[in-house]
Amino acid sequence: MSELTLPQPYLLFLGDTTEPGYAKTAFGLRDWAPERCLGEFSVAGATVTTGLPFLTPAQAHAAGARAMVIGVANAGGFIPPSWVEALVEALRAGLDLVGGMHARLRDFPVLRDVAAEHGRRLIDVRVPPSPIPVGTGKPRTGKRLLTIGTDCALGKKYTALALTRAFHARGVDATFRATGQTGILIAGGGIPMDAVVADFAAGAAEMLSPDAAPSHWDVIEGQGSLHHPAYAGVSLGLLHGSQPDVLVVCHEPGRERVLGHPDYPVPGLRDTIELALRLGSRTSPRIRCAGVSLNTGKLDPQEAQRVIDAESERLGLPVADPMRGGDSFARLVASCLA
Amino acid sequence: MSELTLPQPYLLFLGDTTEPGYAKTAFGLRDWAPERCLGEFSVAGATVTTGLPFLTPAQAHAAGARAMVIGVANAGGFIPPSWVEALVEALRAGLDLVGGMHARLRDFPVLRDVAAEHGRRLIDVRVPPSPIPVGTGKPRTGKRLLTIGTDCALGKKYTALALTRAFHARGVDATFRATGQTGILIAGGGIPMDAVVADFAAGAAEMLSPDAAPSHWDVIEGQGSLHHPAYAGVSLGLLHGSQPDVLVVCHEPGRERVLGHPDYPVPGLRDTIELALRLGSRTSPRIRCAGVSLNTGKLDPQEAQRVIDAESERLGLPVADPMRGGDSFARLVASCLA
Repeated sequence: MSELTLPQPYLLFLGDTTEPGYAKTAFGLRDWAPERCLGEFSVAGATVTTGLPFLTPAQAHAAGARAMVIGVANAGGFIPPSWVEALVEALRAGLDLVGGMHARLRDFPVLRDVAAEHGRRLIDVRVPPSPIPVGTGKPRTGKRLLTIGTDCALGKKYTALALTRAFHARGVDATFRATGQTGILIAGGGIPMDAVVADFAAGAAEMLSPDAAPSHWDVIEGQGSLHHPAYAGVSLGLLHGSQPDVLVVCHEPGRERVLGHPDYPVPGLRDTIELALRLGSRTSPRIRCAGVSLNTGKLDPQEAQRVIDAESERLGLPVADPMRGGDSFARLVASCLA
Repeated sequence: MSELTLPQPYLLFLGDTTEPGYAKTAFGLRDWAPERCLGEFSVAGATVTTGLPFLTPAQAHAAGARAMVIGVANAGGFIPPSWVEALVEALRAGLDLVGGMHARLRDFPVLRDVAAEHGRRLIDVRVPPSPIPVGTGKPRTGKRLLTIGTDCALGKKYTALALTRAFHARGVDATFRATGQTGILIAGGGIPMDAVVADFAAGAAEMLSPDAAPSHWDVIEGQGSLHHPAYAGVSLGLLHGSQPDVLVVCHEPGRERVLGHPDYPVPGLRDTIELALRLGSRTSPRIRCAGVSLNTGKLDPQEAQRVIDAESERLGLPVADPMRGGDSFARLVASCLA
């Protein structure tokens, strides 16, 4: 049993969404997996658009689509009744449904019934594969890179995606390995690490980045932080199981408190690098830190470059914002591949 | 947390086990709940014994047994086909089945069918409570002690049980908090930490040792090891969520290789203590190590005392084997309560 693999290409479903912030999943797919996205579909009331062509499920199926992905995550992660008719329409048109929300598609009897009737699948990407073996700690062939964070939600997935793209641009054989629901939708497969039973976390990471050709890179999306008061165990299981040759540490300048845990300071970069190398060396003795990825989205370009240069000088490592690219990012990529 | 009400006394089932380290559930029940254990049963190939009388399920039932407990926990926690006939025999003999492995008794159709036919129960104690909240990292009242190991299956549960007993003997209000199936069988309650979904591991540990009176001690059974290639994430979640005031580090002298992972050396005590204090201080800033618990069961008494004294001298900490007691154990208990 390998990790989840999703039917594709996709029709992106936007529901009745009027708040662009809730459509991050659809925008992420458009930006990072455009070749998998044929169009968008929504119901009455929606104002958000990805800019992709509006296609009915029948039109999308005729154009080659094989699944409709729920591309929105409203507050609460539920599936409102106003979406159900559109979801049923997609199933009848021959599309599987793919969801990454807390609410599971399979928990809707009408969707189960229509899917069964039409031989379609309801795929909840937050459900891990089964069975997952216990981690072995045995060395694997191929090369691995893991993004590590000083906190949640500051760029570990984007950094891994940007590095994968940069590796490809340099002719390097590389695969982005997704560990969270959005990454899984972008990659078309992966394992939702945070939904795996704790005893199997390292085993899941081993399964996600299996033996590969010696020159192949798996670029693995990190989760949480080794200093996180709630999620550090997930991060450590992922680190041990991934056996990374290379770490890239991700941070947001100016974030001083752990998101949702204001009593906890965000750890320093030096401390994070040192701890990650120490813990990671248990299963990957030659692990090294190739550099730092800074999320400078809240800074203007001059200030961002100043912070990038200062941190690179302070740490003695390549530092870049992958979303800004440039020479500093080229140096970070070169350091990863060195 | 729901309290368990288990049918008893027990017949202990050893499967076809040849590795004593995997039979810790049976040994734990024999040592800590002897009044509930009438005998043992096993199938062809088994070499491990608890020393209790060998009874068939029919003989055990005639002697008053009301349940057969699966007393072994192999790597991965699965139930091999070679055990099924014996489990069916127990049900037919009038015994309920109690399992604490990842594999659930109820997932075996033949066991469900036979249990239904004979009016017997299939009880899986490794099912965590639901819902478990995400960890908060907020400080709690009361005092907490966590046992930490250099490996699995070397005395973390025994040490916690012995310390709880010693605290009680000194008039200290203390509760043993079970985190694994054997501890739960002994204590009659607890949370099977390794069965919790990874994102909720620290939250489960917080739930297990809630706010308590300022003078009350929760003595928490550790799991795995922070250096374990498969289970370190569980250990870190438990450490962060437990917010221990005091650590007692558990080790078996002479164990050089991680059980089931012979490529991995068992870490040193100094390294384990230092890493546990470093990681634990994230949620428990005043954490300290009260001393070391050595499992000297394979040594003769003179050699055991020599090792205990030498380690205490080397580490500058109280060191004891709780199963041997004596002055060194009294010093370890005093150090915990200091």
